[in-house]
Amino acid sequence: MAESVDSSRKTAITPRREEDFPEWYQQVIRAAELAEPSDVRGCMVIRPWGYGIWENMQRQLDAMFRATGHRNAYFPLFIPLSYFAKEAEHVEGFAKECAVVTHTRLEADADGKLRPSSALTEPLVIRPTSETIIGASYAKWVQSYRDLPILINQWANVVRWEMRPRLFLRTTEFLWQEGHTVHETEAEARAETNQMLEVYERFVRDHLAIPVFSGEKSESERFPGAVQTLSIEAMVQDRKAIQAGTSHFLGQNFSRASGIQFQNREGKQEYGWTTSWGMSTRLVGTLVMAHGDDDGLALPPRIAPEHVVIIPIARRLEADPRVIDACERLAAELRRRSFHGERIRAQIARADAGSQKWYWVKKGVPIRIEIGPRDLERQPFVIPVSRRDEKGATMMDASDFVNRVPDILQEMQSGMLARVTKFRDEHTRVIDSKREFYDFFTPASSEKPEIHGGFALAHWNGSREVEEQIKNDLKVTSKLLFELSRSTILQNTANAFSQVNQARGVWSGRRRTERGSPVG
Amino acid sequence: MAESVDSSRKTAITPRREEDFPEWYQQVIRAAELAEPSDVRGCMVIRPWGYGIWENMQRQLDAMFRATGHRNAYFPLFIPLSYFAKEAEHVEGFAKECAVVTHTRLEADADGKLRPSSALTEPLVIRPTSETIIGASYAKWVQSYRDLPILINQWANVVRWEMRPRLFLRTTEFLWQEGHTVHETEAEARAETNQMLEVYERFVRDHLAIPVFSGEKSESERFPGAVQTLSIEAMVQDRKAIQAGTSHFLGQNFSRASGIQFQNREGKQEYGWTTSWGMSTRLVGTLVMAHGDDDGLALPPRIAPEHVVIIPIARRLEADPRVIDACERLAAELRRRSFHGERIRAQIARADAGSQKWYWVKKGVPIRIEIGPRDLERQPFVIPVSRRDEKGATMMDASDFVNRVPDILQEMQSGMLARVTKFRDEHTRVIDSKREFYDFFTPASSEKPEIHGGFALAHWNGSREVEEQIKNDLKVTSKLLFELSRSTILQNTANAFSQVNQARGVWSGRRRTERGSPVG
Repeated sequence: MAESVDSSRKTAITPRREEDFPEWYQQVIRAAELAEPSDVRGCMVIRPWGYGIWENMQRQLDAMFRATGHRNAYFPLFIPLSYFAKEAEHVEGFAKECAVVTHTRLEADADGKLRPSSALTEPLVIRPTSETIIGASYAKWVQSYRDLPILINQWANVVRWEMRPRLFLRTTEFLWQEGHTVHETEAEARAETNQMLEVYERFVRDHLAIPVFSGEKSESERFPGAVQTLSIEAMVQDRKAIQAGTSHFLGQNFSRASGIQFQNREGKQEYGWTTSWGMSTRLVGTLVMAHGDDDGLALPPRIAPEHVVIIPIARRLEADPRVIDACERLAAELRRRSFHGERIRAQIARADAGSQKWYWVKKGVPIRIEIGPRDLERQPFVIPVSRRDEKGATMMDASDFVNRVPDILQEMQSGMLARVTKFRDEHTRVIDSKREFYDFFTPASSEKPEIHGGFALAHWNGSREVEEQIKNDLKVTSKLLFELSRSTILQNTANAFSQVNQARGVWSGRRRTERGSPVG
Repeated sequence: MAESVDSSRKTAITPRREEDFPEWYQQVIRAAELAEPSDVRGCMVIRPWGYGIWENMQRQLDAMFRATGHRNAYFPLFIPLSYFAKEAEHVEGFAKECAVVTHTRLEADADGKLRPSSALTEPLVIRPTSETIIGASYAKWVQSYRDLPILINQWANVVRWEMRPRLFLRTTEFLWQEGHTVHETEAEARAETNQMLEVYERFVRDHLAIPVFSGEKSESERFPGAVQTLSIEAMVQDRKAIQAGTSHFLGQNFSRASGIQFQNREGKQEYGWTTSWGMSTRLVGTLVMAHGDDDGLALPPRIAPEHVVIIPIARRLEADPRVIDACERLAAELRRRSFHGERIRAQIARADAGSQKWYWVKKGVPIRIEIGPRDLERQPFVIPVSRRDEKGATMMDASDFVNRVPDILQEMQSGMLARVTKFRDEHTRVIDSKREFYDFFTPASSEKPEIHGGFALAHWNGSREVEEQIKNDLKVTSKLLFELSRSTILQNTANAFSQVNQARGVWSGRRRTERGSPVG
């Protein structure tokens, strides 16, 4: 997220954020070649640059799972309808958005038109999440307390039929990881739920350079079937919240539904205590909305598919072989260096006389270096280094640059976190009165209706009535129905805070003990 | 694959290979905790140890794709029926095994029973392979020869309804990678097809320690819609062939179907030349069948989830903390060493007085070390090192072992390849007469019906009639219909050989120019 710029300057992305934030988002994704809608309603194609970001997230998050004792496995895509229906709240919560397989072959009808044939006796639901199908395996694996804990994660695609798809943020099919664990005691399962939220918070902050609020959601926003849902929420540049990851304490609800029972230390049969937790490709959309600017995407170096792009400047269409050679030697030198335990990723761009610079700016690559025939003549070899977070280029001695590149990348990574944190803090307000609370979420006449408000930290007595009242009131006054239906409530138990977050704000009592009406 | 042993010895797996090879295969998978059938017909659960093998394969194969210029992306799980039907041979080839999504929600009927509701106007096929859905994107991306080549790979799950599922070898849902490329010329596309087959051959040989025959399949065994299908075929211990990877030259068939057109260097519109190539979780089953022995799985070190397992020997249930400490120090030392560019993977097993040794033998971990209280008393610290490919343990100085572990692992890796190669060569015969050919595939009375024959290299004139005749004849005489329906024909063009491989054998003319009847 770059500092605000002269709004008359021509930008690489049209419209600018302040003109039309949702459209700006689509245009950044298109310009950076991250993804595109497919002809299959609600499904997207993740292009190599977008998938490269996801692969880096996967690898780094996976290492954190491994370090906390988890191993990966893989369970079926299909869930028999009868399994899925075992947990009443669960099926209720997902029934309206399930893709259902009913047939197993295609046959030509009398007109030669293909039709589904061979109907299944029991329809199969494509997993929207895997608690029930994984539970069926765990019920077999768990016999004794000695088999516990089970600490397994799965990287998979899941399907939830979306009526209002939006690239990365809400798609019918999406990619995610889902952890599923079983524990001997409630305390252990709760500790796991908290630990994974903390892993998510750390990952999003240290790798994606985005600070989050973390806490507990309200009853109405809980995962269907969970006892407790914890969430991390990030503020993006339209000042709205994005739920970036959730961790659920499931109690014994799913164990009872699936029959996950074990003989405890006293020799008695007991149901296991389970958790589940997930993060998805929505993180890529969060990244775009948190860090992008009016020139396109800006990537935190740790998850950028390339750290450095070297562009050979060609006078004609073909670049000078000596220029290509110099680019390759520089790339090889860079690849010998490391950043956070991974080799520096350096790519040589297609030689091009003009458009390559902006192509890579829009893609958000952290460092860009353009080398032309004239650069080769200088002794020592001095190159123009352009950082995505600065205007213009800085001339640097090539070998000095190679040595300093890890430090430069870390400086960029830290700078991005600092800027996003500053933005969030500027738009987070402690609010004690009803009027101020309502005013905060009502756009002033001078503001763009889409970008106003932020996070409000306000009192709340924890009642559902108050939650409903606020949803209804703000729906009426500001047409926030859709966002409000996705509202979340945070109770940051660690800090003895309780917070209400709706899509336009976090709303919180500053002390858990000070419960009262939020509109007091 | 261990050398043949005294058949009276008690083995960890029952039955032994020679008693009942298919059942032995199931039992090894169960004992090694690789996978298990799920209640969803034909789908399997891949357990952490099996998935760990797959993850290692993925990472190493992916690096080879990257080194040959490919990048990963992700395309939708669903294919609109109309897309799928665009290529006539293709839809014909897959129509009988397609899972079809017809509804997008569940609703309770009058009896409270859940039923699919909200019928789709156009059914969606779950991808059995992605040529058509990826082709739809490529048609948008390719405008000019300057956009070519497109070199993309996808890691994904696919679904082909299986009537006779078998863990890893044939499952309704399986995991795989599928490369899909578009080229400017036929020659480039053919070179890509050959290059990827060569990558597969190298990967299977150098990483999985399995030698393969590589070549071209007969018309009847081609991928539906392909111009040419290349394949690598491994021999496993029942002397049958397993198709381990395929690479298809698709000509302009799929480009025409999807409308992948570009302006060529002469300014004319032309259809792109495409390829596709894939490897799947079937490789895990191939590994079991190639290397397993009567004591369970044996893993080539390069793809083993753990290289070394250290078992603390406990006198009672709890291990001595000093023993645990010694194990941890040894593991830490090992993890500082590398093998083929990856850190040594060392795990400390659960302390156990008895069953842990055989647990890890059956799981196929390359090196096992048991450390008990008495081992700590020796100076210098000497430890019993057990290799999966040797009987008994060798006492080694601990620091000497740590230094030598990469060499020991390489010795094991090379030894496994040598043993499997020897086995294959012993059961591969050059055959010139019809009688000998038919005898080779007819079990002698002294042989187990399931384990006989091998690969026959025999003449072949390339005609379909001969292929049919052999299929029919051997069906009658040896009930090989099922295997024969999966038969493959190899023409190893690189070596001017043409080879016929059916599930019980490779059949080949030794010179391409010597075409004649294979039956002498």
